[in-house]
Amino acid sequence: MAEYVLHCFAQSGNAYKVALMLQLAGAEWEPRFCDFFNGATRTPEFRAEVNEMGEIPVLEHKGLKLSQSGVILDYLAEELGEFGAHTEDEAREILRWVLFDNHKLTSYTATLRFLRQFAKTGETPVTAFFEARAKSAYAILDKHLEGRRFVAADRPTTADLSLCGYLFWPEEIGIDFAPYSSIARWLDAIRALPGWVHPYELMPGHPLPAKA
Amino acid sequence: MAEYVLHCFAQSGNAYKVALMLQLAGAEWEPRFCDFFNGATRTPEFRAEVNEMGEIPVLEHKGLKLSQSGVILDYLAEELGEFGAHTEDEAREILRWVLFDNHKLTSYTATLRFLRQFAKTGETPVTAFFEARAKSAYAILDKHLEGRRFVAADRPTTADLSLCGYLFWPEEIGIDFAPYSSIARWLDAIRALPGWVHPYELMPGHPLPAKA
Repeated sequence: MAEYVLHCFAQSGNAYKVALMLQLAGAEWEPRFCDFFNGATRTPEFRAEVNEMGEIPVLEHKGLKLSQSGVILDYLAEELGEFGAHTEDEAREILRWVLFDNHKLTSYTATLRFLRQFAKTGETPVTAFFEARAKSAYAILDKHLEGRRFVAADRPTTADLSLCGYLFWPEEIGIDFAPYSSIARWLDAIRALPGWVHPYELMPGHPLPAKA
Repeated sequence: MAEYVLHCFAQSGNAYKVALMLQLAGAEWEPRFCDFFNGATRTPEFRAEVNEMGEIPVLEHKGLKLSQSGVILDYLAEELGEFGAHTEDEAREILRWVLFDNHKLTSYTATLRFLRQFAKTGETPVTAFFEARAKSAYAILDKHLEGRRFVAADRPTTADLSLCGYLFWPEEIGIDFAPYSSIARWLDAIRALPGWVHPYELMPGHPLPAKA
């Protein structure tokens, strides 16, 4: 077994946040496929033994079973000595953007993509609502990135890894990032990091497995 | 000026998380009213000088201007020596629930309440969507609280203060917490903490000011 085991599936941007960090840091890790689209996270066994919150990712390391990508990224920054804060001010700035990501950016983006790409609801009042909220979050991030290479420091940190989690799927979200020119430039900078890989090449389960 | 200045308004559960902590810890603080319902957080001045994310709460202390309730709670736990983690395991457990709160529980609850209570949209596909998501989050928290007095330790921590932020407004959310018996018991335990005050008694702006 590899040192780090990541419960994940290819379509999960939240899992990608962690997988990308492990990949960029050159950590010894292996994915454990979670069949989310056939209900794996909703079983009593998963809730009892893997994550009571019914969510992916979960990281196993040194007997710990960690959930919530923001917790795992923080843990890995300490363990791997990369992508973490150098000062208390930076630590607060990183956490601030990780929370904004969870509350606003990923939250609205992931739901919008899920409805359009996987639930295939078509355009509804719900997708319109989430699109408007997602765009508000992009505008805030775009403005913040004006004149900055990365979100919370002059180098990539876990804040960048969290915020970019879903943004390499613009077609699936149904959003064009070209008008958000600072976001587009920042995503290019992340793509240019040595070892960067698209989520569909980094985690198992793409294309979607057949329905059980 | 008091030691801590909190930009807030009575209807903000996110501000209440911080106000309640300051209140329970007996800190010397004062509110600075933010006229959210007349657009105060959307002005260029607010975005430039107070919070680029356009959100409340913002805490001013020792020349710092901190935003995101999860960052502020963590900062105050250190400054005040209360409601924080005693071990690294506890720190991760607290952060895990603060992130769950931001991503799922508060996120869905606050939006549902806003639509019903303030935007007065009536029942729509959007409120139905948020109600279902909020109830999923309550079920997860309710199950976690079975046999536990508090969320992340045997005493109240910032995780409890974050998660409870909107839950003293059940009528405004339009949710009855009675079926979530562990949540109901836990909310009673928070209400019983010495110094507890309802958000509408703790922060300025209730009832709603007239539209400008």
